[in-house]
Amino acid sequence: MTESIDKPPLESTVVIVGVGLIGGSLAAAIRQRKLAQTVIGVGRDRVRIEAARTAGIIDEAATDIAAVADRASLIVFGTPVDRLVSDVRTAQAALANSTGNPDILLTDVGSVKASICQGLADFTSFIGSHPIAGSHQQGFEFADPNLFQGRMCVITPLRSASASQVERLERFWRGVGMTTVRMSPEDHDETLALTSHLPHVVASALASILPEDGRSFTGTGFRDTTRIAAGDPRLWTGILRNNTESMLRGIERFQQSLNQFRDAIAAKDVELLERLLREGQASRKALDHSPQRME
Amino acid sequence: MTESIDKPPLESTVVIVGVGLIGGSLAAAIRQRKLAQTVIGVGRDRVRIEAARTAGIIDEAATDIAAVADRASLIVFGTPVDRLVSDVRTAQAALANSTGNPDILLTDVGSVKASICQGLADFTSFIGSHPIAGSHQQGFEFADPNLFQGRMCVITPLRSASASQVERLERFWRGVGMTTVRMSPEDHDETLALTSHLPHVVASALASILPEDGRSFTGTGFRDTTRIAAGDPRLWTGILRNNTESMLRGIERFQQSLNQFRDAIAAKDVELLERLLREGQASRKALDHSPQRME
Repeated sequence: MTESIDKPPLESTVVIVGVGLIGGSLAAAIRQRKLAQTVIGVGRDRVRIEAARTAGIIDEAATDIAAVADRASLIVFGTPVDRLVSDVRTAQAALANSTGNPDILLTDVGSVKASICQGLADFTSFIGSHPIAGSHQQGFEFADPNLFQGRMCVITPLRSASASQVERLERFWRGVGMTTVRMSPEDHDETLALTSHLPHVVASALASILPEDGRSFTGTGFRDTTRIAAGDPRLWTGILRNNTESMLRGIERFQQSLNQFRDAIAAKDVELLERLLREGQASRKALDHSPQRME
Repeated sequence: MTESIDKPPLESTVVIVGVGLIGGSLAAAIRQRKLAQTVIGVGRDRVRIEAARTAGIIDEAATDIAAVADRASLIVFGTPVDRLVSDVRTAQAALANSTGNPDILLTDVGSVKASICQGLADFTSFIGSHPIAGSHQQGFEFADPNLFQGRMCVITPLRSASASQVERLERFWRGVGMTTVRMSPEDHDETLALTSHLPHVVASALASILPEDGRSFTGTGFRDTTRIAAGDPRLWTGILRNNTESMLRGIERFQQSLNQFRDAIAAKDVELLERLLREGQASRKALDHSPQRME
């Protein structure tokens, strides 16, 4: 056996539920890297999911997860976090009534993990994932097979998860170019509150107070700082409502930091102010050297 | 006289004091658009300012504004806001002792205007400017002759300013591709506190609270939201200390906005939360359609 002989794909059939930007990019990555024989996309809107098939993002299109679940080796749920548990339950029910793959693995791409993983704790075929990759674009039209390349994927198995299934899930995410790390769902949510959910709220709060007549006086700074505020409000409501405690801690921590700046400005304490700005600069510059690189 | 005959340049000799990213880009824009016969750059560091000349950014290099001020028709000060008034005073003293151009015009590119314009209120040849253009890069090596293209420049003349000098200053900034608007120095500072100075403090406060072990879990969102925190702490200390009252009002307004999000999250009031996110989204999206376009 030589290198020139193709390795078999990791999965036979991957079903992706929710073929938007993330689901569509995942489908494109799987096909480009030949990680599965077949990619089936499931979407509630018949016209949209057929369009994704016509665009070559998926091999097959379906509108009902129950109709295709028993053909899957791996099902990835890319639906909004508020709908995730019920969508997985629908697939679980269909699988229970079928003679499908007993080795089936289910995962998701949701930005919160505790509510989802605890809500599905009795269903050991499900293991949570959060590929930290995205864009403010929406829709499979912006699908990018390299979206996951070089980025981090957090896997949040419960103790009940089978070691071989966890390793299989890690191989899958590595297959699309990601680095993987295991965390508890709670640790994930606490960390992501600071690194992702809090920035969204901060950006949105900042964008909100810009008066209409101030728009012409914004430069690249305001625009970059608030860019993510353009994200889908419904999606983000779902994320924030499912990470309440970590978010409240994160907001408080941020407010303490902001109050230090405010007090230094009010006291005209230029030494303290410069030190605070220097700390922010050092922390931000360190990101440019961290392994999670930006393109 | 036909269109094919070259118009004379707007200015004979422009002296630019401080040839960093902004000063260097301005020099490059003036030369590319032939807005002056000669561009003299002034920098305290002999090696650096000679390098800018060798790089073709400026025609002549000098280290002392007093030595070249009397040759200028227009002097643009690109030094940090904390040094601006004293730098202008140095030039003013040199001009008083010379037989230089009586029609000389002096301006600056500082991000705050009230402290500068009030500090120079007795010197009617000075009119404040703030071209809203920039980059987190530093140094003339990143000079870009198109940096000002399509952006807004605020001109803040006091009542004592001559109408013809104000118009001349506007022609100059339009000459490098900008739209101009006149405001009082105080209105400028109040507006820019919200559109520029507050975002910097917010970005810095957010970057500061990222723990080291959280770095790998940041995505494009965190990085964009905090990008400007990488800016020069000394420069920003100078800006913030010169805009105390507007900054304190801006921070308070932002805190009120953030508290609304916090309360909605704490109360699990998803309708309110979604409405707040929707307001932030609408405000941010409106920027994409505003005349101050991004490249």
